[in-house]
Amino acid sequence: MNTAAEVQPLVGIIMGSQSDWATLEHTANMLKQLDVPFEAEVVSAHRTPDRLFEYAETAKARGIQVIIAGAGGAAHLPGMCAAKTELPVLGVPVKSSILNGVDSLLSIVQMPAGIAVGTLAIGNAGATNAAILAAQILALTRPHIAQKVQDFRLAQTEKVSSKNIPGQL
Amino acid sequence: MNTAAEVQPLVGIIMGSQSDWATLEHTANMLKQLDVPFEAEVVSAHRTPDRLFEYAETAKARGIQVIIAGAGGAAHLPGMCAAKTELPVLGVPVKSSILNGVDSLLSIVQMPAGIAVGTLAIGNAGATNAAILAAQILALTRPHIAQKVQDFRLAQTEKVSSKNIPGQL
Amino acid sequence: MNTAAEVQPLVGIIMGSQSDWATLEHTANMLKQLDVPFEAEVVSAHRTPDRLFEYAETAKARGIQVIIAGAGGAAHLPGMCAAKTELPVLGVPVKSSILNGVDSLLSIVQMPAGIAVGTLAIGNAGATNAAILAAQILALTRPHIAQKVQDFRLAQTEKVSSKNIPGQL
Amino acid sequence: MNTAAEVQPLVGIIMGSQSDWATLEHTANMLKQLDVPFEAEVVSAHRTPDRLFEYAETAKARGIQVIIAGAGGAAHLPGMCAAKTELPVLGVPVKSSILNGVDSLLSIVQMPAGIAVGTLAIGNAGATNAAILAAQILALTRPHIAQKVQDFRLAQTEKVSSKNIPGQL
Amino acid sequence: MNTAAEVQPLVGIIMGSQSDWATLEHTANMLKQLDVPFEAEVVSAHRTPDRLFEYAETAKARGIQVIIAGAGGAAHLPGMCAAKTELPVLGVPVKSSILNGVDSLLSIVQMPAGIAVGTLAIGNAGATNAAILAAQILALTRPHIAQKVQDFRLAQTEKVSSKNIPGQL
Amino acid sequence: MNTAAEVQPLVGIIMGSQSDWATLEHTANMLKQLDVPFEAEVVSAHRTPDRLFEYAETAKARGIQVIIAGAGGAAHLPGMCAAKTELPVLGVPVKSSILNGVDSLLSIVQMPAGIAVGTLAIGNAGATNAAILAAQILALTRPHIAQKVQDFRLAQTEKVSSKNIPGQL
Amino acid sequence: MNTAAEVQPLVGIIMGSQSDWATLEHTANMLKQLDVPFEAEVVSAHRTPDRLFEYAETAKARGIQVIIAGAGGAAHLPGMCAAKTELPVLGVPVKSSILNGVDSLLSIVQMPAGIAVGTLAIGNAGATNAAILAAQILALTRPHIAQKVQDFRLAQTEKVSSKNIPGQL
Amino acid sequence: MNTAAEVQPLVGIIMGSQSDWATLEHTANMLKQLDVPFEAEVVSAHRTPDRLFEYAETAKARGIQVIIAGAGGAAHLPGMCAAKTELPVLGVPVKSSILNGVDSLLSIVQMPAGIAVGTLAIGNAGATNAAILAAQILALTRPHIAQKVQDFRLAQTEKVSSKNIPGQL
Repeated sequence: MNTAAEVQPLVGIIMGSQSDWATLEHTANMLKQLDVPFEAEVVSAHRTPDRLFEYAETAKARGIQVIIAGAGGAAHLPGMCAAKTELPVLGVPVKSSILNGVDSLLSIVQMPAGIAVGTLAIGNAGATNAAILAAQILALTRPHIAQKVQDFRLAQTEKVSSKNIPGQL
Repeated sequence: MNTAAEVQPLVGIIMGSQSDWATLEHTANMLKQLDVPFEAEVVSAHRTPDRLFEYAETAKARGIQVIIAGAGGAAHLPGMCAAKTELPVLGVPVKSSILNGVDSLLSIVQMPAGIAVGTLAIGNAGATNAAILAAQILALTRPHIAQKVQDFRLAQTEKVSSKNIPGQL
Repeated sequence: MNTAAEVQPLVGIIMGSQSDWATLEHTANMLKQLDVPFEAEVVSAHRTPDRLFEYAETAKARGIQVIIAGAGGAAHLPGMCAAKTELPVLGVPVKSSILNGVDSLLSIVQMPAGIAVGTLAIGNAGATNAAILAAQILALTRPHIAQKVQDFRLAQTEKVSSKNIPGQL
Repeated sequence: MNTAAEVQPLVGIIMGSQSDWATLEHTANMLKQLDVPFEAEVVSAHRTPDRLFEYAETAKARGIQVIIAGAGGAAHLPGMCAAKTELPVLGVPVKSSILNGVDSLLSIVQMPAGIAVGTLAIGNAGATNAAILAAQILALTRPHIAQKVQDFRLAQTEKVSSKNIPGQL
Repeated sequence: MNTAAEVQPLVGIIMGSQSDWATLEHTANMLKQLDVPFEAEVVSAHRTPDRLFEYAETAKARGIQVIIAGAGGAAHLPGMCAAKTELPVLGVPVKSSILNGVDSLLSIVQMPAGIAVGTLAIGNAGATNAAILAAQILALTRPHIAQKVQDFRLAQTEKVSSKNIPGQL
Repeated sequence: MNTAAEVQPLVGIIMGSQSDWATLEHTANMLKQLDVPFEAEVVSAHRTPDRLFEYAETAKARGIQVIIAGAGGAAHLPGMCAAKTELPVLGVPVKSSILNGVDSLLSIVQMPAGIAVGTLAIGNAGATNAAILAAQILALTRPHIAQKVQDFRLAQTEKVSSKNIPGQL
Repeated sequence: MNTAAEVQPLVGIIMGSQSDWATLEHTANMLKQLDVPFEAEVVSAHRTPDRLFEYAETAKARGIQVIIAGAGGAAHLPGMCAAKTELPVLGVPVKSSILNGVDSLLSIVQMPAGIAVGTLAIGNAGATNAAILAAQILALTRPHIAQKVQDFRLAQTEKVSSKNIPGQL
Repeated sequence: MNTAAEVQPLVGIIMGSQSDWATLEHTANMLKQLDVPFEAEVVSAHRTPDRLFEYAETAKARGIQVIIAGAGGAAHLPGMCAAKTELPVLGVPVKSSILNGVDSLLSIVQMPAGIAVGTLAIGNAGATNAAILAAQILALTRPHIAQKVQDFRLAQTEKVSSKNIPGQL
């Protein structure tokens, strides 16, 4: 439903390369679960810098409220996106095969004073949480999403059942 | 003005100890500059866990929209706060004398899937940017703050004057 | 025997998620070997914060003497548990797939002055040693456990047989 | 008083060199505050290995209940002490000028399965917390110390006064 | 002389902020020593992204042959510059007060396949060497610069005089 | 074609051991794609130091314009090569099984002021980019290579097609 | 031959656990290749501290000239051995599954002034090189071993044949 | 006395730059204390590669028995020296202002199989211990030095006096 043409996407997911989708898919799945309409696109800071600038410059006018940018390695995507939009930008460090995402984490989180990126954990957990944080932001003025966030949190708490250690009893 | 009783604070700044104020003061200063009313308090996850829970549980009802939590060392404050509120929580790793804030950064950013903290850079830059990101979130539905954010960004861009290298000309 | 209802558990094992059991099982196995009765439970600092607080607040009254808390990633469980109980708390950093448990180690060990967590090695070795340290604590006033600890140490020393290098002789 | 001949020390503080006293002094001060009698000595794993072994072998018979060992650099003291005594051993990584205590932390905490050291934070915070954890262990069977621990925790909680941000009001 | 209007600058030095000049000044000094005309400018990837793009897009047409970009923290400047020009780009990680330039080093060097930045050492040594490497590149087709590079290297070798240990003889 | 005897190689690829070819092969492939003639050889700084010196001393006279040196572990090859030639030297840290190439990266990039190595990313990405950077250097005075670089960059930009997230539409 | 009872071992290899043999076997193999008689034994600093002390105390009298100690994790074996013998001690950090041997490396190399351990690389390379360094030490006064070392080095240099890149020609 | 022309130096100390003397001076002082004649020289792997090769090639013939090489940053000196001599080479990582000597440590210790460097601790402790290890090697066949080493160790053990904690009694 949230990919139907008539629904206004509220979150824009961008990622540095096609292979990052294995991580950012967790963002998309959680946004779906929280009923947050979104769009998703590959936009590379290094290989398509002009497209990145155009994306960031036009996102607000197109109705996007929050941008989630995921990237690995040098990971300039979230920070450069934030440099070009006044929308809140959340960054997801993608785990690479070389340095496990430590390079991406530092590249994304260590922004200088003046341009901010809200950074999440490396990899899938961070991708999921970027969706949750975006939903929490949107929930401030959208009761329907607020309800979804609340439901998700309650269900998550209930799922942690006690005394369920395998082989224990 | 933003500390006057009649102004509803929109951002709640909490920090793990009195000494963290040297860092979080940068958050307060930037919020003032962006005309975002806020409150600030020392709440320790470890020394005052019940107060933290009470703070997080009641923040939304008190009108707070975004919580900014700064802490050093093990830095459990932002994550535990996020566990107890549906409000967006932003985390600021405070630079310690031992590990330069690497421990705080990892403690704050590496949250498991399900509870999100938007993490900023270690130290003063992160503290400043937490304020900016909070303002960007609030600006989504508050034109006055949106204008302030836009003004700040324009001024910041203009301040970077070219050809101003000392000793060059 | 130590899981029978009539035996008072002396050690409480808690872990942040079901998947941590693969690590904490080594704690349980060593406690069994040392005849230390225990209980084990999944309690998440982030997904079930209230349950964590209740667990920590009531552990002492229920007769628990030592709490062993294992967690991965941001790993706030041991420290938050220690913030809510006067019992000794031992922390086990669970090895994650992203940062190999370095994040958990720093989150658990770098507690600020005032609230202490005795931290063990990352992963299975730490899980085993948490049980041994708990037994050493209990052995201070329980001769039966003291004997078991002593037996274990003697057997362990004897097991390191000399000149047993494969392919050497 | 706790150094008078007639008081049985319950905690033995050892440190690798005289210069570690600047850190371990925090252990001594906190033990005094919690009314835990202790002894303190420089025992070097590398420069006085036989003395270390003798210390560890005789500590239990001399009535010591918990050993707190602080060391910097390669920091073999806590682990080697634990190899030679059945008493619980707590380790304090001393911050060095070269690697900030990261080497000491890893040397102390990464013990192999079989010999356990409960490790505290690097530097003064860890030194203070080693005393607190030792007191919590002793408090299990000593109501006087239990009362002191409880008093300390209450006072610590009360000291974190709210709304005390300098320059805020 | 190399700043006179009539001399065509061959190297463009850009840096993320005015404070980076303390580092990049070493680049300028070495370029002067090697008789390489250059220009130097503050261009921030985050605060002046459009100016950065314009700078990179026009550098080649203006006669620049090599760009040296220095930045600290997230340090996106060299990589984003390389994304927008076919000129060789050399990157200098500026040492920050928080992570000593490790974050800048990883942000600059860990570029994905497709867009290259030749990275030098953190801080002043790297700034000096960026100038030397640029001169070596220019020297491939400019005998005057080749001679200067050769002279510099010879003088440097000669300066390391033997048996000059203070207090030795 | 570029391995035919009559074509003058412009780039010399050297690597510390035969096993590094799995990485440096990406350099060779990209150089072929950009029509840059090259030679490739195993030259070990530690096992064949004299051959390394001879290689570096004679490269310029043989017509080589840029040297690309890849090595793992201690990785002294690029720096020692640079110490013996005035040609620009680019270094590629090869990912090892132990420290993931962090040791090679630091060994290659942290050159002291006076001898420069332009360092690329760890592993295959860096190997590819060393070829691109070499081509960009050669392109300064070789229009044919300049055209190839431009073509490569355009094709690379076009390959990042938008809206191509699997499972999205 | 070198394991026959009548040959005096000159090198003593000790390792912390049976599993370390997979690494230290490279030491044994290289010693055999260099005709250096040796003995090898599992001696655990933590599980058999008294045996370690006895081993170190008696090694010199038994004719051992160099001790090679390999260990993983906290890796106290080399340093504690060095504390108890005047023989030169070489340390080999064994790669563990958790921290890749970084913990072992720091534990072995960061010895305080006064007791020295000559540390080799993490894992198999270090194990091989410990044998080579021991042989170089013995070769100072044993021409037969000196010849073997020289032969090994020459053969190693010759084995690096040039122009042998697969797929290149 | 040990610098008089008639005394044959047994240890050659080399260092990458004049500023390393502040560290290597500790090597010289300890060698003097242990009555080991030595020579000391600045030899830079990068700025004077030919001199390094000549030094290493001729050291053995000049009667040197052990080479101690100290360097900071990329620190190629010890490994390249070892590549050119069959003498045992000990490496001392000099602490730099940027990465605290971690780069030097990894550059020195992570040698590939085939060429060995016995690495000591970062900084002054390592410099002192390089002298001690060199003396232990020489002591294998020089009773006078063996006696000096034994005396030093005994004195060192005696200097660690017990019960000498300031402010304790």
